[in-house]
Amino acid sequence: MIRIGVDAMGGDFAPDAAVSGAVLALQHLKADERIVLFGDKQQIIDILARENVSPDKFDIVHASEVIEMGEHPSKAFSKKTDSSIVKGFMALAAGQIDGFASAGSTGAMMVGAFMVVKQIPGVIRPGIAGFIPVSENKLNLILDVGLNPDCRPDVLFQYGKLGSIYAKQVLGVDNPRVALLNIGEEEEKGNLITKGAFELMKETSEFNFVGNVEGHHLFHDKKADVIVCDGFVGNVVLKEAEAFYHLLKKFNPDNTFIERFNSENYGGTPVLGVNKPVIIAHGASSPVAIMNMIIQTREVITSNLCEKIKNAFV
Amino acid sequence: MIRIGVDAMGGDFAPDAAVSGAVLALQHLKADERIVLFGDKQQIIDILARENVSPDKFDIVHASEVIEMGEHPSKAFSKKTDSSIVKGFMALAAGQIDGFASAGSTGAMMVGAFMVVKQIPGVIRPGIAGFIPVSENKLNLILDVGLNPDCRPDVLFQYGKLGSIYAKQVLGVDNPRVALLNIGEEEEKGNLITKGAFELMKETSEFNFVGNVEGHHLFHDKKADVIVCDGFVGNVVLKEAEAFYHLLKKFNPDNTFIERFNSENYGGTPVLGVNKPVIIAHGASSPVAIMNMIIQTREVITSNLCEKIKNAFV
Repeated sequence: MIRIGVDAMGGDFAPDAAVSGAVLALQHLKADERIVLFGDKQQIIDILARENVSPDKFDIVHASEVIEMGEHPSKAFSKKTDSSIVKGFMALAAGQIDGFASAGSTGAMMVGAFMVVKQIPGVIRPGIAGFIPVSENKLNLILDVGLNPDCRPDVLFQYGKLGSIYAKQVLGVDNPRVALLNIGEEEEKGNLITKGAFELMKETSEFNFVGNVEGHHLFHDKKADVIVCDGFVGNVVLKEAEAFYHLLKKFNPDNTFIERFNSENYGGTPVLGVNKPVIIAHGASSPVAIMNMIIQTREVITSNLCEKIKNAFV
Repeated sequence: MIRIGVDAMGGDFAPDAAVSGAVLALQHLKADERIVLFGDKQQIIDILARENVSPDKFDIVHASEVIEMGEHPSKAFSKKTDSSIVKGFMALAAGQIDGFASAGSTGAMMVGAFMVVKQIPGVIRPGIAGFIPVSENKLNLILDVGLNPDCRPDVLFQYGKLGSIYAKQVLGVDNPRVALLNIGEEEEKGNLITKGAFELMKETSEFNFVGNVEGHHLFHDKKADVIVCDGFVGNVVLKEAEAFYHLLKKFNPDNTFIERFNSENYGGTPVLGVNKPVIIAHGASSPVAIMNMIIQTREVITSNLCEKIKNAFV
């Protein structure tokens, strides 16, 4: 049995959007897959009643507290021991669930990922990954997208390795091509960090490094499947793509490719380099975004990603 | 008389595109404005004959050599003393032209800007600026977009100042709002460099600092008129926007707002912080892009931008 832990209290529209998203996800689950909701039991049951869904479809772990978006993450995590996020991480650590996902406080999720789940030995700094549509049915992976705004070259190197494993195991890309996001394609281009990272990557056998790519290579996969950059650059890149999506949706409301830039379709951002599956979603997540977050969490769990990463970093 | 120096041999499609662009620019010039073409005199005259334009409409300074895109910029600059770029910079230094623009070797243009024109005293590192459309008839300025991939906080601070002066003098924005491109709007967000820059900017009276903006704020001007970032981030941002333009043009070939993302419309990138107007255009510039480069050079000259910057940095 695979148990997918979901924070029912996380996100700007929780618990309604979170519980409704979990209901939407039900139809995508296999017989041996089950969603475990963490949150206010009565509220969850009331929403399920409104949706005409039996509470038996879920496991529900009651949590009487909620870590709010504005709270100091580590203080809130240590004080609110009966919050949905803390109880989710406790269950994850105890093996009662196989992964945990939330659209709630990103900071508190990070505290849980680092302090409870902990990073995989050998990983210098975990990163978070984002997705970029490159065709009607393919996504490229970009990392880091905000966890480490200041990256050393060896951290970027490891992001190449982490991204390569994710692309292979979860996205199903064979021998993923890993590129360094840079300001020129030539080896000598870049800032101090990317120049150092290029040196480390150029002759590696740990992943399939294909060299530098530039900003205009982001939305096709002619060159790469995984794009490596520091968390500052990756964050700006993803948010710029989001801005484009909103800008262009009004011109092309029905264009399916443009619709792929809608971050709702991906549902969440996996934390790569920690011992268990942790997925963080946008605070403004709708039920559909929550559903996709849950499906993505299931993919990370069933692909056995964390074990694969552990083995690669031994 | 205002004399606008133009490299007739610069760009992937030179001299044809460069000379044709100069012809297109003629109609936008006032009576006291004149284009000075640097390049192979006979080739220039032949192209003008094909366009049915009298050579008398231009001043032509013969240059027998061309610095090619693949050449080492500083070596080529010191060896090819009869090249169009070197002769252009010599004329600029001698006051025979008031500004110089080229779609040729960016590296050689930078050598000329730094070694011949030289940076303005007090400017730590000159930067290059790019443009982002924010509405049908307004552009925001973003800098640096590639000259300094590694910026110290005090350099970012000066980019705020340089960008503010450009927006006011050339774009005509009253009291331009300057924002720092960051990964969160809160003061404590960012990498080491933006955190340091925020500290320097937050109480400055040298420009109108409005705080942090994020990648999703780039394509409107609700928050800022000038966006400050290091040259690595700015380069990725502009090239990502270029990628979007190409991606979306096929869906919306006639959309005027999307067409504003076409970098051809801006024609060039001003080098900010050097003593005289130097404008660099994309190698792939078409005649229309060259025309816009020339018009932009004229605007930089007539706005007296360089003097305004000098006065601000005294």
